[in-house]
Amino acid sequence: MNITPTMTAGFRFQTLATDGPARTGILHTAHGPLETPAFMAVGTAGTVKAMTADAVRATGCQCVLGNTYHLMLRPGAERIAALGGLHRFMDWPGPILTDSGGFQIMSLAALRKIDRDGVTFQSHIDGSRHRLTPAICMELQRLFDTTISMVLDECTPFPATYEAAESSMEMSMRWARSSREAFCQRPGYGLFGIVQGSTYADLRLRSVRALKDIGFDGYAVGGLAVGEGQPAMLATLDVTVPHLPEDAPRYLMGVGTPDDILCAVERGIDMFDCVIPTRAGRTARAYTASGVYNLRNARFADDPAPLDPECECPACSRHSRAYLHHLFRAGEMLGPMLLTWHNLAYYQSLMRGIRRAIQVGELSDYAARVRAGWKMQEVSR
Amino acid sequence: MNITPTMTAGFRFQTLATDGPARTGILHTAHGPLETPAFMAVGTAGTVKAMTADAVRATGCQCVLGNTYHLMLRPGAERIAALGGLHRFMDWPGPILTDSGGFQIMSLAALRKIDRDGVTFQSHIDGSRHRLTPAICMELQRLFDTTISMVLDECTPFPATYEAAESSMEMSMRWARSSREAFCQRPGYGLFGIVQGSTYADLRLRSVRALKDIGFDGYAVGGLAVGEGQPAMLATLDVTVPHLPEDAPRYLMGVGTPDDILCAVERGIDMFDCVIPTRAGRTARAYTASGVYNLRNARFADDPAPLDPECECPACSRHSRAYLHHLFRAGEMLGPMLLTWHNLAYYQSLMRGIRRAIQVGELSDYAARVRAGWKMQEVSR
Repeated sequence: MNITPTMTAGFRFQTLATDGPARTGILHTAHGPLETPAFMAVGTAGTVKAMTADAVRATGCQCVLGNTYHLMLRPGAERIAALGGLHRFMDWPGPILTDSGGFQIMSLAALRKIDRDGVTFQSHIDGSRHRLTPAICMELQRLFDTTISMVLDECTPFPATYEAAESSMEMSMRWARSSREAFCQRPGYGLFGIVQGSTYADLRLRSVRALKDIGFDGYAVGGLAVGEGQPAMLATLDVTVPHLPEDAPRYLMGVGTPDDILCAVERGIDMFDCVIPTRAGRTARAYTASGVYNLRNARFADDPAPLDPECECPACSRHSRAYLHHLFRAGEMLGPMLLTWHNLAYYQSLMRGIRRAIQVGELSDYAARVRAGWKMQEVSR
Repeated sequence: MNITPTMTAGFRFQTLATDGPARTGILHTAHGPLETPAFMAVGTAGTVKAMTADAVRATGCQCVLGNTYHLMLRPGAERIAALGGLHRFMDWPGPILTDSGGFQIMSLAALRKIDRDGVTFQSHIDGSRHRLTPAICMELQRLFDTTISMVLDECTPFPATYEAAESSMEMSMRWARSSREAFCQRPGYGLFGIVQGSTYADLRLRSVRALKDIGFDGYAVGGLAVGEGQPAMLATLDVTVPHLPEDAPRYLMGVGTPDDILCAVERGIDMFDCVIPTRAGRTARAYTASGVYNLRNARFADDPAPLDPECECPACSRHSRAYLHHLFRAGEMLGPMLLTWHNLAYYQSLMRGIRRAIQVGELSDYAARVRAGWKMQEVSR
């Protein structure tokens, strides 16, 4: 099935095939293509932790994330602009998405105060005072030269009462409109709106309607993976995604485990980001075709087998589980480096498999095979 | 000048050219060639810190060091042997040199007790008791499948009285003989003796004579770079190196700064190892053609220039000084990764320059140019 490419204001998003609600396609950006469904590696402070940019590219990753909150505080948006933008700064000529900073202000900054127009807060680094409004947020992302900008929003805490979720969502929708108005539209660049509304179906619908009225280059589902659990997350997707525009990319923010990703793709999500593969890699946890392993476990001390025989990353193609175990036991940096590389490579191989499966209309078979593989470890050990 | 290759018991050491006391050549080993003068990267626990094996190779490094003390304690020599040896374990098919562990026992282990035949000590990791004798030391290095083994010795502390240095040296010479007797000779593998004697010329000479009587595949100068200062180190080389066999490689252990290396090459040393480039890389210090820089320094915050325009490593070819500065300020692992890479690349480029200069008989010109470059930074900043 070949759907005609659609030109949104900033991007061309080309759907190549669908399989039920799932789609595979290409988001054409000023910094090159992003094949969807896509997993974007998280590079908070202008670096995917423990990875060179070359290594990130070698995993098959096409788009990385930067974090507006972290980058505005250090090294500063003006400085990044003066140095040629974030792409050049971090040696990533491909697409970059930056989040709006709203989430990190809520989780990291001190003395934050939200008002109608934005939020004032103190840096967690040096206590300096800063203000973020939709207009400032758009200007920061323009200074970064961000490919995919995100509107300023409030990530509604979970759980939230209906009233709290409603007023938070309404504020985010006002900020979304102000963000759109302040966003400097350029060809191949775009701005994504963010659906909020906690786990309340009618709030999610109102949020979708508000965003569609404004009109964005892509639509993110925010406020999930914040403690609600996978069933509630999927239920929220079930009531939200069918109402999102078909001709624009859909991005589930901050998600998730490989199974979360499969479930969300099955519901029509195109883009993902999550710290799981990088953070897990630094703490000796490996995601593989046969499940999750903790490489610190003593059972690996003498294991000559590769971590994941199906994987071509350096951790798997060059070393034994015993070596990886040794590196973590000895506190050597190469342990986190190799396991981060592996986890990102595994996530990218999962996304490649998903894209291929959708192309040939076999996503449910593929998902069943992958899920059966994950259970092997529990059975065999 | 082309000197006929010499077959020592284990290695073929081919001198290609000389320039005064300096020589350039090739040590042919069971695991491939080592071009000399050579700098060997330190991989204490089976990993060059913050580097993949591929990255170490990319710097031009041909031989890495492992540490017998660290590896015997963790992961253990029998385990490494069962996993196919240290080459396979750490993905380094090239030559590997392991030190004897004597130095680390003195500096790291608890409750060490030296007797005539060896040393008993407690692990700094878990307090377990261990014993190292020349025979055990040879067996450990055989289990690692070490290309270049070192005799068990005592690195005489500095300063030492004449009497202390004499009795320490004499013990090391007894251990050297026992090491040679216990060493399992195989083609392409070899054992190096270690000259001791602190800064006392006559003790050094007696040590050289003792080692030549025993006969080794290479001769190391030990007990230097332990606080005596460069003038005393070079004075000791001046009285030692001329008496070492011409047809075997000469290795100055634990040395040093780029200038130390130049000075020692000028005195006929062929091999070096040192933690300086890796340790400095982890603490933001960069060795370059124009001197040493501390990348944490605020003056680099906005500097768009490459760290070292002459260097082709990823830190220099892909990034600005401002980015490296940012990584260290933000505590990102990529900072130590990139700067370790750079420092090792710089050391290897220095060794390549030294080898070429000796080939064409222009070592003193080359050394003068390199030293003038190092002073640029002091002048311009």
